[in-house]
Amino acid sequence: MRKLSEIEITEKIKELPSWTLTGQALEKDFHFKNFSLALAFIVRIGIEAEKLNHHPEIKNIYSKVSIRLITHDVQAITHLDFLLANSIELAYRS
Amino acid sequence: MRKLSEIEITEKIKELPSWTLTGQALEKDFHFKNFSLALAFIVRIGIEAEKLNHHPEIKNIYSKVSIRLITHDVQAITHLDFLLANSIELAYRS
Amino acid sequence: MRKLSEIEITEKIKELPSWTLTGQALEKDFHFKNFSLALAFIVRIGIEAEKLNHHPEIKNIYSKVSIRLITHDVQAITHLDFLLANSIELAYRS
Amino acid sequence: MRKLSEIEITEKIKELPSWTLTGQALEKDFHFKNFSLALAFIVRIGIEAEKLNHHPEIKNIYSKVSIRLITHDVQAITHLDFLLANSIELAYRS
Repeated sequence: MRKLSEIEITEKIKELPSWTLTGQALEKDFHFKNFSLALAFIVRIGIEAEKLNHHPEIKNIYSKVSIRLITHDVQAITHLDFLLANSIELAYRS
Repeated sequence: MRKLSEIEITEKIKELPSWTLTGQALEKDFHFKNFSLALAFIVRIGIEAEKLNHHPEIKNIYSKVSIRLITHDVQAITHLDFLLANSIELAYRS
Repeated sequence: MRKLSEIEITEKIKELPSWTLTGQALEKDFHFKNFSLALAFIVRIGIEAEKLNHHPEIKNIYSKVSIRLITHDVQAITHLDFLLANSIELAYRS
Repeated sequence: MRKLSEIEITEKIKELPSWTLTGQALEKDFHFKNFSLALAFIVRIGIEAEKLNHHPEIKNIYSKVSIRLITHDVQAITHLDFLLANSIELAYRS
C-alpha cells in the first residue's frame, strides 16, 4: 500500500464530505441516541474492518463513536483508508 | 416469578400488537436489510436481557432475528417476559 | 456451490470430531460460563460469517450457542459449510 | 456520586494492581491475539457498563483495548469507577 498524494486525497475526500483530514488521518465522530446504539455501530464497523483486513482506531465515550483512519505501515492515508471510510459510511446510513 | 393468568396475558399483549402468543411463549420475528444489522440488534437485545437478568431465546438466520420469550423456571409467561418484550421493542424502534 | 457427496462429507468431518451431521446440516452446541461469553462468541461467529459471505443458523439460549450449517441455495452441505465450521472452531479455540 | 479521597483511592486500587492511576482517571490496556477477540471484549465491557449505568472511555487499535474510567459529572474517580473496573476485570478473567 502506497501513501496517497495530496491531490489524490483532496479528490477522494470530496465524496466523504462529513469526514475531516487531520494530520495524516481521516476522522469522523458519530453521535447516537444512547450507548446501546453506539456499541451496535462499533460491532458493525468491526465487521467492515475484518472484511477489508484493515482496522480503524475507534474511540467511544458513551453515545459518541470517533473513528480515525490511517495505514500504520506507511503512517499515512492509503487507498485502504478510503475503502474503509466508505464501508463505515455505508453501514451508518443503512 | 409467578405464571401470568390468561386474562393478564390477553391484557398485556394488547400493548405489543406485533408479538404473538405461541403455546407458552411470546414470539416475534424481526427482519433487517442485512446480516450486519441483524447482529447489531442481537447485541442490543443482549444488553437489555442482561439489564433485566432475564434472557430470550434468540434465533438468527441471515437477516432475520426470531425472539422467543418464556420464563424457564415456571415454563410459562411471567411479568419478566413482558418487561423484556417491551425493552426489545423499544430498542428496535430507536 | 455444489452439494458434497457422502464420501466427501465423511472424509471432511473427520477433522471436526466435535461437530455432528444431522440430516442435511452440520451442527454443534457451544457451552459457556454465562450469557456475556455466549454473546461475545456470537459476535465472533458473525465476523467469520461475513468474511466468508456465508452465514450459519445461530440459536442462543442463555449460555448455549447452537450452530447449524447448511447451504440454503442447494439445501445441502457444501464446501462453504466446512470452511465456516473450521473458522468457527478456530475462533472458539483462540 | 462524590469524588473519592486520595486515601480511599490508594486503598481501593490495591485490589486492582494491573490498573494505573493517571491524573483523574483509572486506566488499563488489554491486549488480545487478534481484533475479533478485542471486539468481543468491548461487547462484554458494554454489557457491564449498561448494567451499572456507568460507561468507560474505550479506545481500540486493532488487538488492543484501552479503558479509561472517570465519573464525568464530578470530573474525578468515584465509587462507580471502581465498581466498573472490578466488573471489567472479572469479565476479562472469565
